[in-house]
Order: sequence, then C-alpha cells, then structure tokens
Amino acid sequence: MSQTARQMSIGMNILGFGAHASAWRKAEVPANAYLDVEYYRNIARISERGCLDAIFLADGPALAGDIAQHPAGRLEPTVLLTAVALATRHIGVIATASSSYNDPFNLARRFSSLDHISGGRAAWNVVTNAGDAAAQNFGLAGAPRHVDRYARADEFIDVTLKLWDSWEDDAIIGNAASGQFADPHKVHSIDFVGEHFSVKGPLNLPRSPQGRPVLVQAGSSEGGKALGSRYADAIFTTQTTLPDGQAFYQEMKQRARQWGRNPDHLKIMPGLSTVIASTEAEARARFDELNAYSGEAGLVQQLAFRIGLPPDELDLDAPLPWERIGPVSEFERGSHGFLEAQLNLARRENLTIRELSRRILVGHRLLVGTPEQVADTLEHWFRAGAADGFNIMPDMFPSGVEVFVDQVVPLLQQRGVFRREYTGSTLRDHLGLPYPASQYQRAAEAV
Amino acid sequence: MSQTARQMSIGMNILGFGAHASAWRKAEVPANAYLDVEYYRNIARISERGCLDAIFLADGPALAGDIAQHPAGRLEPTVLLTAVALATRHIGVIATASSSYNDPFNLARRFSSLDHISGGRAAWNVVTNAGDAAAQNFGLAGAPRHVDRYARADEFIDVTLKLWDSWEDDAIIGNAASGQFADPHKVHSIDFVGEHFSVKGPLNLPRSPQGRPVLVQAGSSEGGKALGSRYADAIFTTQTTLPDGQAFYQEMKQRARQWGRNPDHLKIMPGLSTVIASTEAEARARFDELNAYSGEAGLVQQLAFRIGLPPDELDLDAPLPWERIGPVSEFERGSHGFLEAQLNLARRENLTIRELSRRILVGHRLLVGTPEQVADTLEHWFRAGAADGFNIMPDMFPSGVEVFVDQVVPLLQQRGVFRREYTGSTLRDHLGLPYPASQYQRAAEAV
Repeated sequence: MSQTARQMSIGMNILGFGAHASAWRKAEVPANAYLDVEYYRNIARISERGCLDAIFLADGPALAGDIAQHPAGRLEPTVLLTAVALATRHIGVIATASSSYNDPFNLARRFSSLDHISGGRAAWNVVTNAGDAAAQNFGLAGAPRHVDRYARADEFIDVTLKLWDSWEDDAIIGNAASGQFADPHKVHSIDFVGEHFSVKGPLNLPRSPQGRPVLVQAGSSEGGKALGSRYADAIFTTQTTLPDGQAFYQEMKQRARQWGRNPDHLKIMPGLSTVIASTEAEARARFDELNAYSGEAGLVQQLAFRIGLPPDELDLDAPLPWERIGPVSEFERGSHGFLEAQLNLARRENLTIRELSRRILVGHRLLVGTPEQVADTLEHWFRAGAADGFNIMPDMFPSGVEVFVDQVVPLLQQRGVFRREYTGSTLRDHLGLPYPASQYQRAAEAV
Repeated sequence: MSQTARQMSIGMNILGFGAHASAWRKAEVPANAYLDVEYYRNIARISERGCLDAIFLADGPALAGDIAQHPAGRLEPTVLLTAVALATRHIGVIATASSSYNDPFNLARRFSSLDHISGGRAAWNVVTNAGDAAAQNFGLAGAPRHVDRYARADEFIDVTLKLWDSWEDDAIIGNAASGQFADPHKVHSIDFVGEHFSVKGPLNLPRSPQGRPVLVQAGSSEGGKALGSRYADAIFTTQTTLPDGQAFYQEMKQRARQWGRNPDHLKIMPGLSTVIASTEAEARARFDELNAYSGEAGLVQQLAFRIGLPPDELDLDAPLPWERIGPVSEFERGSHGFLEAQLNLARRENLTIRELSRRILVGHRLLVGTPEQVADTLEHWFRAGAADGFNIMPDMFPSGVEVFVDQVVPLLQQRGVFRREYTGSTLRDHLGLPYPASQYQRAAEAV
C-alpha cells in the first residue's frame, strides 16, 4: 500500500473491567482495579503500543447498575485521563461529559486544560444523559425530554466552541523585556446570550494545542444526528448490520455537506464489542465462560434495558414483541441509537430474543471469533463505506486489549489499512482532521 | 526537641510566576511556563524535597487582570494537580474551586477522584468568588451578594460532605468468586433537599483514601469565619500583624468549640509573602528590582484594588482615606479578609499608603529579609498562638521556593518546629488531622 492509502482510526473503549458485565468475575485484576490509575495507564500503554488513535471513557453523573452484583462508580474522566495522558506520549484521550449537567465555561476550561497538559490529545465526547438518576443529582425530578436535552446540547456546544476560540492562536506576545504579555485585541469576549446560557467570556486559558479539543458525539437519534453532523469531528455510533452502517455513514456525510462542511472531516466510528481467541471455538468458550457467571439472564437483562421492557416479560425463544415497542423517536427511557440498533439486527436477521442477546454487548454489535475474523470485519466495513474507524470494546481487560493490539492490529497493518507508527503528535493528526481556525480570527480577517 | 513536639504545617502557594506581579518580567522561566505542567511539577518536587505539607492553587472562573501587561489564564486546578500529584509521592495538593459556580455532585466527584488518584493527598479550597466577571460567565449579571454567596456555600459544603460520606468505608466486598461486589446497605442515597440544591446521591465513587478530601477555607469575613469554623480542616487567612493574628486564631478555635469540634482539628494558616536573600540588603535589592518593572504605581494599584478605591485618587504620602472606607462587613467589591488585613496593618503601624503598599504582596503580609528572619517570624507566630502553619507565597518561581526549601526549612527543622521527613502518607496525616468517619456509618451504628 502507498503511504497515502486511506487509514482507519481505532479507539479503545475502557468500560470498567471490560464490555462484558461479568468481566470482573474472571479477576484478571483485583476488584478495586477500576479505581486505580495504573489499571487505566496499563491499558493506554498497550493501546499506544498498537498505535491506536485514542482511548475512550464513557461516563454519567450517577451511580448506575446493581452495586450488589457489579462494580459501580467511576473516576471522573477529565481527571483520570490527565493521569493517563501523562503516562503516554501519542495516544488521544477522549472523555465523556454531559451537556445536561455541566456549565459550558467550566467544561470548556477543563477540556482545554487537558488539551494543554496532554500536548493536544484531548477530546470531549458530548452526551445528554437519558435516565432520571443523573437528573436527580442536579435538582431535577427526572431527565428533561429528549428534544429539550438536545436543544440544550446544541447551545452548549456553540458556547464551548466560542470559548475555545476566544483567544486567537497568536494572542500571546510574551515579551518579558518589554512587558507586553498579550495582544488584548486577539482575546475576545464571546458575549453569548441564548436560551439556556449567557456567557461573557473570554475563556481564562489561551487556545490549546489542537486549537479546539476534538469533539466526539455519540447520539444516533434524529437530534443526535443533527447535532453530530453539524459540530462533531467524530461520531461514535452503534450499527449492528452492514447495510444499516452504510446507510448511516452516507446519511451523516450528506448531513455534513448540508451544513457546509467537508464530509471527510466528520469521522464515522461504529462500536464493535469483541471476544477474541486463536480459534473460533476458543473464542466461543471464552464467551460462554463469561456468560456462565450470570447465566443467560444476564445477557437478556441488558437487552431488556436497551429496549425498555421488563426482562421477565420477554419470551426468550420468540421474536421481539414488536407490538409493544413504539416509534424510536418517542423513546424516552434510554438511547435511541441503542434501541434502533437492536431492532435493526433482530429485524434483518429475524432473531429470537435469545439469539439477539448473544449478538450484542453493551448495546453494540458483538464479534466472537479469531483475530482474522475481527480484522476481516473491520476491513470489510471500512472498505464498504460503513466506517472511517471503530470504537473497540473488548470483553475483558487487560487480556482483551492485549489480544487486539498484538494479533488484530498487525493484520490490519499488513493489509495497509492501519498505521505502523504515529505520524503526528495530536489526536487531530491521528484522525486526519485539520487544525481549526478560531472563528474570531476569521471575523477579524474579514473586516 | 522530642518527636512529639508540635509541628507547623507549610503550604506552598503557586501563584503563576510568583506572588510579585512582575515576576514574569525576570524571565526565570519562559512566558508560557504557566501553561506547562512541568513548571508546576518542578515546584512541587522542590516543595516535597522540603517536606512541605502541600502545594496550593488559587483560582477563579474568569479571566482576571490586564492581559496586555500580565500573564493571565490558569489551567483548571483539579486537572493540573492530578498531573502534579502523579509526579510526587507525599505532598498534598490543594485545589481552589468555587461554590458559587459549580454543582456539588460534579465537584464532590472530581475531588474524590483526585483523592483516589493521589492516594489521599487532595484538598478542596472552597471560595465563593467576589467580582462580577465570574458571575457573567455563568448567566448572571453580577456576583450574588456576599451573604447569599455564603449561604449557598454552606449548603454546598453540607451536600459535598454527605456525598463524600455516601459510601461507607467497607461498602465494597469485591468478591469475584461469589459475585458480591458491594453491600448496598452501606451505600446511601443522601436525599438532600435544600434551598439551593436537591441532590439524591449516592456519589458514583466509593469513599476516597482520606475518607473525605481535606476541606480548606479562605474567607475571613463574618460569613467566612462561620463557615470555616464549622466545616473546614484548615483556614487560609490573611493576617498582617501578630495581635490580629492571635485574635483571629483564638476566635476561630473558640468558634470551632462552639460547633462541638475539637479546636486542634481546625488548622489556622496565615499567608506570608516572601522575598528572601542571604542578606537583608540583597533581599531589598531583589524586591526593588521586581518593583522597578512597573514602578511604585504597580504596588499602589494592587493596594487600591484590595481596598476598593481608584488608584489615582490615593495620595501616596498620606494615611488611608479612612472616611471613604465603609464598614468591612458591607464591602461588596472584593474580599473582606484582604480589606481588613490592609486596614489593620495601616492602623496599627500608622502607615502612609506608600509604606503600606510595600508591606503587602497579593493581599498578604510581606517579609523581605534573610532566611533567618523568615524562620524567626514563622517560629514566633507559631509559638505565640497566631498560627498552626503558613501558606507561603514566594515572590518568584522557581528561585523563591528553592531558597525557602533550601535555606528556611533547615532552620525550622533545627529549631524543632518542622518535620525532617514525612511520617504519614495522606495530607490529613501531614496536617495532623484524624480520619473522618462517614456520617452515615455513625447513623447506622447508633441504630
């Protein structure tokens, strides 16, 4: 392959002990490892050994899940990823934070700080947080409606981008001899007055190494697609079948064009959960061993949560109860993207609930197989116009990231679709995204 | 001295390039050093070499000062101090954050994360932020009134402590074999409903190594004193004369008793700005050299800001215009503590404005002198019942922290008032504070 062949991007999604809810039961690491910064640093170092683009941390501001049976609680991502960034040199760090339960000034500043400290490797994954538990930690009785959360998110992102742009690149003069520190004409109040926020600015930090931290967005609802295609640099999405993945990819690129953007600068990255072993039989055994801890009920419970129905009302050997599932656009109990992805897979392959539950992990398409099978799938989706890259969710850490980096990545490299070394220093470089000019600089130049 | 002699605590306050506004002009480090994590790590390592208790970062969520002439902007403290903590092993890290412009859940979680990651070395310095610039970044036309900011702060701290306590110490079982992760009876909703906040909880993080991060409070107003004596582990205060320092110390210990607290567990730490050299003449020359950059006007400008009057209306060779200065308790343009400290010094020593401006740096008592003179002052205040420790603000970094650690600390050690090595692992250990039981654990045991 030539140097200039299109390359895929790969993010490593660190979901606690792994994507499988029973990963902690295997005890590859102690039960308190998820509170230990070294646990995350180790995964990041392994990922960097494989030249991956970034590590990714999901998040939500509430205690989720059944703490009697599953590890719960999470270190705050911007703090944790600061620690991780300083133990690595190249890999990007993507932190999730809520637009519903933060203020733009504080969030913009924290991510700018992370971008400064990491030398240009920070990204913000914006989420709006369905679910009442988070809302109840912030003075609300329950989550705002889907449409309202996305309206707030839109304004939140607009303010955040303005704050990140509020110092022009060359605002600092830094002449100790003359005593000129900055050019005040290159530091701009943003004077934002909107429906949800009024923010004067400027940010109390100079522009960060990437200009702006990378913006990642993960919603696949109508609101999420509108938001992501307008603002995001990368879209994390759940796509369970190739045709749906291709359709989503085409739609998002088209939407980006409609916003006047270069569609190449919007990277589409579906999630893929993985259970990998040298042979398919071994991979199935590994999956079965994890499933055995909580039995089939564990898998079905997660599926039930995603589609918003009580698990004990589901008949495992029947198809989905389609008549009980309303339009995705009116779903208020969780992620529209997850719901749609489960429905798409069940419909296209005519699966029973039991079958469907074994094809999905943490809401994403699951691949149980060999390194070759995983590489085949990634290459296929990448070449078939369904993905610019992938968000990988191994079943279990650290073994799941080790096998991916040591056995899948070399295959992708041999096939010419993944880098053999880092060629840039920032996450924007890895993703093939240009450095964004400050919107205030453009305005000044236009005068 | 015996092992058990009372020891002072010392915090190192990293104020940009140093406490002197012209420190950056000396160019001991590049003009962008304040954005470089290595700058802070270096200061922290030097401080740790001197066995200091903690480093401290002030903060406010707005761009402050004249950016044409002075470095402006700050990395967000919890993110920055995560980076610093991981480059050190013992020293505490104290981050300032606003109770007026944060949510308790997010703040409690971020500081808990820092406490987990640092192995029990985190502290929150709670400030309420006078000044309109911060307010205007958070949807307000101007800062809430002093009394309202402190009412919110009181409730904010109450919620935060409850969140930090919401997991009992032994809530995690972590038995991978049996699948028991936590005892749900030891993880408590806090169900807080107040005037400013409604927070259900629990925090989405287990209890941190110190039980609760150390709570520092810096207000010396009536509201600040009430708040600090009730909740704080340590009080940072500005005291410009020994009698005032002694009176404040006595008052705060008495207030702590009235809240039913052990007064030994409330540490009083006045600030001290330092300009240190081998001889008094050299120290004065160092101070004069820094002053020369912006001339006398620079010092007077800072004084004028602290007392809330325009600098060009001040007669440098006259006393303070007492008739133009109203009661401290009604001062809405800045810190009550700073105002009172300047007034106390001018009044007790009958100083002109010019004289007063040379006795104060960043609002705190300034000592220009030799290592012996600094050690004498610290020891005197410590033994005379005016301080349990000090918050040191060197004129300039890194030389100001180097001379303090290498020349002042050894004198304090020889005199038996400061440790020669760390004897504990947490900031609470350094400060001589006990591990706090969870309020929910106490409630459970009482049943």
